[in-house]
Amino acid sequence: MTPLRLLVALSAFTAASHAMAWDYVLLDTDKAAQDFHITSAQLGVKTAKPFSVTLRTLHGGRQEGVSIVDIDNGAMKLSVVPTRGMNVLQASVGTVRMGWDSPVKEVVNPAFIELNGRGGLGWLEGFNELVTRCGYEWVGHPGMDNGELLTLHGRAANIPANKVTLHIDEKPPYAISLRGELKEQAFKKVDFSVATELVTEPGSVSFALNDTLTNNGDYPKEYQALYHSNFSTPFLEEGAKFAAPVKQVSPFNDKAKADLADWQTYRGPTRDYDETVYNVVPYADTQGDTLTVLHNKAGSLGVAVGFNTRQLPVFSLWKNTDTQGQGYVTGLEPGTSFSYNRRYQRPLGLVPTIEARQSKQFQIRYSLLADKAAVDKSLAEISQIQNGRQTEVRPTPLVDLSQE
Amino acid sequence: MTPLRLLVALSAFTAASHAMAWDYVLLDTDKAAQDFHITSAQLGVKTAKPFSVTLRTLHGGRQEGVSIVDIDNGAMKLSVVPTRGMNVLQASVGTVRMGWDSPVKEVVNPAFIELNGRGGLGWLEGFNELVTRCGYEWVGHPGMDNGELLTLHGRAANIPANKVTLHIDEKPPYAISLRGELKEQAFKKVDFSVATELVTEPGSVSFALNDTLTNNGDYPKEYQALYHSNFSTPFLEEGAKFAAPVKQVSPFNDKAKADLADWQTYRGPTRDYDETVYNVVPYADTQGDTLTVLHNKAGSLGVAVGFNTRQLPVFSLWKNTDTQGQGYVTGLEPGTSFSYNRRYQRPLGLVPTIEARQSKQFQIRYSLLADKAAVDKSLAEISQIQNGRQTEVRPTPLVDLSQE
Amino acid sequence: MTPLRLLVALSAFTAASHAMAWDYVLLDTDKAAQDFHITSAQLGVKTAKPFSVTLRTLHGGRQEGVSIVDIDNGAMKLSVVPTRGMNVLQASVGTVRMGWDSPVKEVVNPAFIELNGRGGLGWLEGFNELVTRCGYEWVGHPGMDNGELLTLHGRAANIPANKVTLHIDEKPPYAISLRGELKEQAFKKVDFSVATELVTEPGSVSFALNDTLTNNGDYPKEYQALYHSNFSTPFLEEGAKFAAPVKQVSPFNDKAKADLADWQTYRGPTRDYDETVYNVVPYADTQGDTLTVLHNKAGSLGVAVGFNTRQLPVFSLWKNTDTQGQGYVTGLEPGTSFSYNRRYQRPLGLVPTIEARQSKQFQIRYSLLADKAAVDKSLAEISQIQNGRQTEVRPTPLVDLSQE
Repeated sequence: MTPLRLLVALSAFTAASHAMAWDYVLLDTDKAAQDFHITSAQLGVKTAKPFSVTLRTLHGGRQEGVSIVDIDNGAMKLSVVPTRGMNVLQASVGTVRMGWDSPVKEVVNPAFIELNGRGGLGWLEGFNELVTRCGYEWVGHPGMDNGELLTLHGRAANIPANKVTLHIDEKPPYAISLRGELKEQAFKKVDFSVATELVTEPGSVSFALNDTLTNNGDYPKEYQALYHSNFSTPFLEEGAKFAAPVKQVSPFNDKAKADLADWQTYRGPTRDYDETVYNVVPYADTQGDTLTVLHNKAGSLGVAVGFNTRQLPVFSLWKNTDTQGQGYVTGLEPGTSFSYNRRYQRPLGLVPTIEARQSKQFQIRYSLLADKAAVDKSLAEISQIQNGRQTEVRPTPLVDLSQE
Repeated sequence: MTPLRLLVALSAFTAASHAMAWDYVLLDTDKAAQDFHITSAQLGVKTAKPFSVTLRTLHGGRQEGVSIVDIDNGAMKLSVVPTRGMNVLQASVGTVRMGWDSPVKEVVNPAFIELNGRGGLGWLEGFNELVTRCGYEWVGHPGMDNGELLTLHGRAANIPANKVTLHIDEKPPYAISLRGELKEQAFKKVDFSVATELVTEPGSVSFALNDTLTNNGDYPKEYQALYHSNFSTPFLEEGAKFAAPVKQVSPFNDKAKADLADWQTYRGPTRDYDETVYNVVPYADTQGDTLTVLHNKAGSLGVAVGFNTRQLPVFSLWKNTDTQGQGYVTGLEPGTSFSYNRRYQRPLGLVPTIEARQSKQFQIRYSLLADKAAVDKSLAEISQIQNGRQTEVRPTPLVDLSQE
Repeated sequence: MTPLRLLVALSAFTAASHAMAWDYVLLDTDKAAQDFHITSAQLGVKTAKPFSVTLRTLHGGRQEGVSIVDIDNGAMKLSVVPTRGMNVLQASVGTVRMGWDSPVKEVVNPAFIELNGRGGLGWLEGFNELVTRCGYEWVGHPGMDNGELLTLHGRAANIPANKVTLHIDEKPPYAISLRGELKEQAFKKVDFSVATELVTEPGSVSFALNDTLTNNGDYPKEYQALYHSNFSTPFLEEGAKFAAPVKQVSPFNDKAKADLADWQTYRGPTRDYDETVYNVVPYADTQGDTLTVLHNKAGSLGVAVGFNTRQLPVFSLWKNTDTQGQGYVTGLEPGTSFSYNRRYQRPLGLVPTIEARQSKQFQIRYSLLADKAAVDKSLAEISQIQNGRQTEVRPTPLVDLSQE
């Protein structure tokens, strides 16, 4: 079983075993977010890796009223932000941190953000997470489409979740699931809901997202999804590598053309580098599962991001290897779409439609690769998926942005 | 006495009898909204129709922190939203619901809405009420006027109320009044306050709005008001009818021209119908009072909306008979103005001026017509107001929108 | 020592003596703003001028959740708004009020303001303070610069502060300091923090602001600062005067040209006057310190605003002598810049740069001049700084706005 296959199995199990789980409502229409703390000991679970879940609320500044759920599964510590689209703020295993250091230090309450500010770049005032949900009405760079300014990467990251619930299986391996619902609704415009789920297991160095987008409306609707998954040191460094089974890669824009030859290798923090982005079409196995890896230069530490190309057929590699202070970070971004404005992606066939009353699932699994053996195993899986198939390296961008 | 006449009388009585009422401050500068519940029994009122008033606060999602006041007058249950301009979310008598099913399911805190988003259509992200206040600096479709983007239907619906107070007369019929103040203020731009009041009586199937707009500034100011009053099933259905004493009717735009012959009859939920809007100039009686009715096909169930044409001289009939999921709804909308952008209404004489330190009153009465007798009685009143006077059916829109 | 010199000395003393102060955290990430009250008596301080500090929170309307810190130093009462950029809402000594009566009556929570609304004038929906911080990414009138709409006077006034702390020296004169930090951060755009401080002393009729802007980023950044300090009656009246050591004065725009001859004298409330603005380049002493004064016609009551021209080299005099209801007010505005849009100030050399990891200090001292002797003393100081040097009166604006 690939990691993603495991996830699917786990997810099915979780749903089936719902009656055998400890369930907690952390936030609901009639229940305010209040300090909450539960431990495996309190549940009577005897485990080598004691776990706990905590809800806390931030105060002051633009983070006033933001709720955070901290999950310590005994091996990995995760922080999820219900107030910001159930985004994953950070995860860590011991001193190894998944995530990055954004100049944005506060966990910003969407009440204080104007997405339409800065010419549609207001989203940047809150961007600092390990996993930032982008979508679901649109993703991509700001710009006009159908007479409307589409703001950067859509609204999902700035929609506060309702009905936030915690579920802990009563039987080993005591899977821990945190769920929350996002409503992306506007009369005549959109009627989406997104049932988000984060799942992990005590002692695991992995977690999975398991999102279900539903079009509650009576009409088919365009949608887009992109999981902006952001990593920095200790994975990212000069000579760090990205690996994936690649069917096609192309530079996002003219700037990215220059570094195309080295697109899978990272620079150290580089003054005035800004960013380069590569559009990747990954290969997958016969089930559609694929795997991407970021690892350090020595190949002794990495992260794996697994997803299914039937759900998320394309992938953006965002190489923001500017200075530490500017945000030294790379984004591994499985999506339905690249990061162009929606009007550019329609001709590319990357603006899918969700039928009325239909649902779409998006499942992504994040794993720490804690040593060389783990890195090598994932690289072998990637090689197995590639299976000798050719990679097309397109020398020019898919979209001509020179008129922008 | 017409229903509206009754309202005016009642309102005067309420004001005069203030010293003989139970008064409660639900929300004020130094008083946070907290759970509150009062019943007729607690007040020692012995009545065949026990009544109660409740304040509650919603949590989670984009409705975090929204206060709701539920009034159960013993016959009708009403929900008012102080956080959203004292809008009336819904009303119901038994299983008969006044209101509609918007795709917007949350009662959205204005903190999470950018009215300037979606090209000025951000308002649609919160629109789901039975009565949504529109105004008072402007109403109408978004567009530029005097170099400024006027957002859809103004700010009123997204202004949280302060000084929310409840008053229950100590003597029969124990009139229940809920008041709240909206401040629509911007340095150099506008200095309006709106004293809103909702009045009902125990056992009644009516309620009235009684708003006073005051220009606190030293200069005359343009203003506009529109009461977006929205109904769906069981009143709205195929063959449902709208009735009013009509002096002039015209299609809002070219689309509405096509259905002009049937403008007073409704379709059932109709795929791809979207909406048609008709501009109505109603006749009134010698006091300026007029009445409009929506009733089902059988004429056995309806709602009446009464107002005074000296306060609100025009009326829009919004026929949004699209599918249920898209929002099957009709709006009965008394106003100072139609729903065109303000720049189009100035030449029509529909952008009135409020003098410095002057006040304007807007009174609207909403009544359930629970059976055929009640419907017929209201239709007879309408006929009496029309009094044989002619209706001008204008074949073309008042405004040429073809350049839009 | 000039008043400003005293401030600097005091500030240094405060920092050094930190260990000898009573310190209170009023608001922090893990500490919600809660009602707080401390008095000199509780601290065991025996003083002829008992002092107190209070934290309270406003509710209802657009001021829901706004925190206010009231400092009564025994002679002067001050109100500071952590939720609005640590702005100084008002100050008063007995019945003499520093501040003004804006049409905006609520202390508006930034969550309810769209700065990008009204063509970039959304700021006006919250503007009512004695001292409103403008900056720090930009100040000035709204307009496009580098492809982005810069909203009126920047974001500072609408950034809620975090880490709000109170410090009271344990030894005479028991200086009272209130601090709070503003984060002005957006990925790729800006990484500023502003450590604000307000200092006063028991029994004093002065207070000082002591702000430190830090560019946390790795790149030099343009910045602008302007302290919009607003006064009305009893200082402002017909015949009231403005005094400063003036090197150069020019009308802001064509309208201000007309009144240039009388630019230092005020009108009474004047219907349809709107506003005139004068750009002032002040002289300073050899240390860069300068002083500006507004006083009533009789010269018996005034306010002094002292600052350092090495920090804030220019000054705007905003004469908004329209009617009382419209906001009869004058702004004394020391700044790095005038009030033009940033794109106009770059050619004037008024868009300074802050280096990476560098800090800039802004210190302004506000003093009540309670009688003729105090006014005369300050006017003498101004005269001493002018020291007979010439004033250039430029007849035309520095910027040609006729194309606007």
